[in-house]
Order: sequence, then structure tokens, then C-alpha cells
Amino acid sequence: MAVYTDVSEEELSVYLRDYALGDMMSYKGIAEGSENSNYLLHTTVGTYILTLYEKRVDGAELPFFLGLMQHLARKGINCPLPVERRDGGLIGTLAGRPAAIITFLEGVWMRRPTAAHCREVGKALAGMHLAGGDFDMRRQNRLSVEGWKHLWEMTRPRADEYEAGLAAEIDAEFAAFAEAWPGDLPSGVIHADLFPDNVFFLGERLSGLIDFYFACNDLFAYDVATCLNAWCFEKDNSFNLTKGRALLAGYQSVRPLEPAEREALPLLARGSALRFMLTRLYDWLTIPDGALVQKRDPSEFIRRLRFHRHISSATEYGLTLP
Amino acid sequence: MAVYTDVSEEELSVYLRDYALGDMMSYKGIAEGSENSNYLLHTTVGTYILTLYEKRVDGAELPFFLGLMQHLARKGINCPLPVERRDGGLIGTLAGRPAAIITFLEGVWMRRPTAAHCREVGKALAGMHLAGGDFDMRRQNRLSVEGWKHLWEMTRPRADEYEAGLAAEIDAEFAAFAEAWPGDLPSGVIHADLFPDNVFFLGERLSGLIDFYFACNDLFAYDVATCLNAWCFEKDNSFNLTKGRALLAGYQSVRPLEPAEREALPLLARGSALRFMLTRLYDWLTIPDGALVQKRDPSEFIRRLRFHRHISSATEYGLTLP
Repeated sequence: MAVYTDVSEEELSVYLRDYALGDMMSYKGIAEGSENSNYLLHTTVGTYILTLYEKRVDGAELPFFLGLMQHLARKGINCPLPVERRDGGLIGTLAGRPAAIITFLEGVWMRRPTAAHCREVGKALAGMHLAGGDFDMRRQNRLSVEGWKHLWEMTRPRADEYEAGLAAEIDAEFAAFAEAWPGDLPSGVIHADLFPDNVFFLGERLSGLIDFYFACNDLFAYDVATCLNAWCFEKDNSFNLTKGRALLAGYQSVRPLEPAEREALPLLARGSALRFMLTRLYDWLTIPDGALVQKRDPSEFIRRLRFHRHISSATEYGLTLP
Repeated sequence: MAVYTDVSEEELSVYLRDYALGDMMSYKGIAEGSENSNYLLHTTVGTYILTLYEKRVDGAELPFFLGLMQHLARKGINCPLPVERRDGGLIGTLAGRPAAIITFLEGVWMRRPTAAHCREVGKALAGMHLAGGDFDMRRQNRLSVEGWKHLWEMTRPRADEYEAGLAAEIDAEFAAFAEAWPGDLPSGVIHADLFPDNVFFLGERLSGLIDFYFACNDLFAYDVATCLNAWCFEKDNSFNLTKGRALLAGYQSVRPLEPAEREALPLLARGSALRFMLTRLYDWLTIPDGALVQKRDPSEFIRRLRFHRHISSATEYGLTLP
């Protein structure tokens, strides 16, 4: 939640010459997106988001992310459309960083989503899974089981500083995953980070999905499991069955889950909770207090992980037959 | 440069019921303004800035600041117009804080202003001084000589940590001010913080003055002196005479300076440099490293202070007879 790179009006004017976007009217750094510098840009033609990619994003992966947004937007998914430069490319250089301009989506993200919002998110997620089917680039999920192991090696020695007994508990999780993590479920392009701040609504209508910078090729049902973690728990960490039912029914109204996906859902949800717990724990242990980056508490995902460990069937999330 | 208070879409929807601004389309926290939380708000009617006043702003002073903007905008000064609530008021409460909505001004601030920009700033400053003439509220300048003394009492014991000999040097400044600070020059409402980030341009046309939260009643020529400090020095701290001449000529094309104002200008510029040096030194000594607030180096104002100490006549700033 910061702007890391300041851009001068001269640099931006020069940069905009490579686009057919008219004249610059204003640009404001916005406090969204934890990894990149984002500006809300007004030109005589319209409103856009200008993103400067900071060092945590691998420039070599930008063609995947921006190409995916372009592919999905052209298929009718409500997501930002990268604006083509005059030379047809999507990526430029501004203030020494890779940069892109994408269309601005109206809408607000729901701090307290309702079941109706969850249903729309489920539908949109399934629509994205189908629309990505013929996208021809691939990107491995760096934050799947192998990536978690790497994070865990770095955090394990200090995990008990966060909570006594956590190291042993998570070791046992990894043992469970090693045996049972599914490899042969339907897969394709997933969003992998579809939390409420990445979904815009106008009233109850979903107006857009944003932030595709974790998108990758992985199991569709894993993306569903992440949405359960992201949308269906209350502030007190209780699972809201009504929201779970709405999210899953919304998803299945577009893409019914296969029996093997249903069966795997509790384990996938547990893995997804572990994934977010691990990145938060890593940040918690390594980012100094008072730093510019906001640290989020891993505890809510430790609780979700424990919740999912005791789920024996996806019907407990509200899953019904399609 | 931060958003301190998050606002939920529910809270904001409720808040907007008190205004005739149509339906909310989007709102984004913007990374501008160091004291308050600012959101860029799109509604079905237009684009606005929503400000939540954080604790460094005294709520009792908001009627002055917002009333001044309304007064100036109605007089044709390019500045934000506070949007009236349905009840006619300008100030509401949102997320537990005083809040206001003002119109959005297009334009960009100049990281590297030219002499042409300085001329426009001079004209706009004089226009504001004249337009404020019949504004009927008053606010004392808390950051004039008495306020500096208070800041200096707090920073003096550690000033030499910043630079050896600084405490003695600044003591001597205060002795000089005690004798010579003028009290009887033309005065009225001044902006008091008209730095480049508070002035928007579209090309070379000045499109708006913003951020009136230091505005107060004080000497007009002191405001001119602050603009010399803010606009006419280069990154290497050298004074750019061409810019000084342009700024002062622009000012005098609207409001000629009186002989006593011209004579006082070097001392006022020295005092203005001291004022910004003191607040920066205070922040430098008191804000912990790595904090969310960006600390700005006091050294550039120490250098300006020393520069002005050796100016014997305002002609050295490029001042000519009107």
C-alpha cells in the first residue's frame, strides 16, 4: 500500500507519446497494490491505471500477466484491458521500471461481502477458468507445494516465536500433503489471489476482477478453495456456510465441479490456507516493525488451516450437486 | 503520503446520502497529502476528493479552511470547491473523523517548474491575496515567529546532532528576528505552503491551487517569500534569478509590492526558510527511521537560510519596480 517510484510530469508526457491516449490531464499515486507503484491517470481520452513494476515482479513474467488480461478482456471477462502502445506492445519503460497502462474499472471492493457477492465471485471465477482455456502462454505456480516448502525452510526455525508448537504442527501438514496432494485434477489458468480487494462491485453487480500478478497454471479447484478462504470466513474466523453455498453454487452454475475436485476440496482449502499463512508468517518474521509495508497477521490463516483439517466432505462448505 | 483511515463501501454509501452527488462508482486512496487521508471519488455525477481529517488537523479550524476554499472558488480562483451537503454544511463525519468532499481539479504538479510556471504562480498568489480580502473569518499563523520559538525550544537541545554548530547559528537568527521582524506590512489571508506539489498545471496554464490547510492571516509578502524558497531554487540549492524575476513580476502584475514590503523581503525569506527548516528538523529528530511518514531533509532550508542572510536588497531576487 504505497507508491514506491515517483514519476515526473516530463517523464510521463514523454512516455504517453507511445500511446494514442490524448493529452495528460492528471495523475495521482494510489494506495493500492502491495507490490507495485500505481497511478490513476486521466487523459483527454479517458481514465486509466498506470503501473510501474517494482523489483518483486519479474519483468520476464509481465507478458504472461498482461497477455492474460488482454486475452480475458477480449473474451468478455470484466477485467482491465492493457492499452496497446503505438508499436503494438503492452510494456514500456518509465522511471527506469517496466510499466504498463490498463483501463480503469469503476466499482468498489467489498470490505464486508454478502452471500450475493460470494455468488457473483463464484460465477466470475468459473467464467475466468473457462475463458483462459485457449490462452497459449503458461506460468508455473511458484506458490504451490514446492514453493511452500521453500518458504517453510526459511520460516520454520523461528515459527515457534510466533506461536509455540507451530513448527511441529506445520511439519505434520507437509507430511499430509506429501501423500495426498492431487496432481490430476482439471487445470488451467487460475487467478490465485482472488481476495475481496481484487473484485469490484457496483451494487451487487460484479464490475471487475483485477490484479492478475499471481495468475498461473494450476488446479481450478485450488482457485475455488482459495476463494472459500478469502470470502466465506467472518471476522471472528467462523465459516459462513451461507456464503460458502452461494460461492460454490455460483461457480457450479458456470462450471460444475467434477467428483474428484469435490473430493479434493477440503485438502486444497487446507493447502491454500497454508500458502497464505506461510507468506504472511514470512513477512511477519522478516519485515521490520514500522516499515512502509503493512504486515498482515498470519493468525487468521492458521485458524482456517485448523478448520479445514477437520472437514471430511465438501458438503460441509455448502457444496451441493450441480 | 499515506492513507491512514480505511473507509468501507457501506460507510461511504451512507455518508454520500447527505450529498446530492449521485451514486458511488469507485473510490481509491491516494498517496498525496501528508496529514490527512484522501480518496479520489467517482460518482455518477463527477469526480471529487474525499478527505478524512486526521488528528494533526484541529477540527475547530476546518470551517476556516473549507470556508476559505468556498470563498476563493466563488471569486474565480482556481481552487477546489467544497461540496455542500444537503443540509448546507461543508463538514461531515466518516469513519469517526471529520470529513469533507471537494471538487477534483485536473492538472499535474511540476517536479521541475520553469520560469513560465513561476510567473503563473506569482500571478495566482497575488490573485488569491486580493480575493481573500473580504473573507470574514480569521486564523492566526501558528507557524510564525512565536511558533518557531516553540519548535526551536523542542529541537535546540539536539540540533547539533544534525549539524555541529547549528544551535548557535539558529540562536543568532532568532536574535536578528526579535529586532527586525516587521509587523505593519499589508496582510490578509495567505496560503503559507504554496510549494510545487500544491499547484497544478495543464501545460503552462495554472489549473489550480490546492491544500489550504496552512492558510492563515499574515503578511502577504511573507507568502511571496515562501514562494521564492519553494519555487526558485534549483536541486543544487542555487537560486535561479530568472525564476525569481518571473515569480515576482507575475505577482506584481496583479498586486504591486509596496516599498516597505520590498525592503522586508530578504528578512521574510530568511524567516520562511527558518520555518520550513524547523518543522523538518523537528520531524527529523522525532520520527523514527522506517516510519510510514516520509521524512524530508532540513538541509535544503538551512542552505536557503544562509543564502538569504547575505541578500541586502530584493533586487537580488530579481525584483523590479512594478
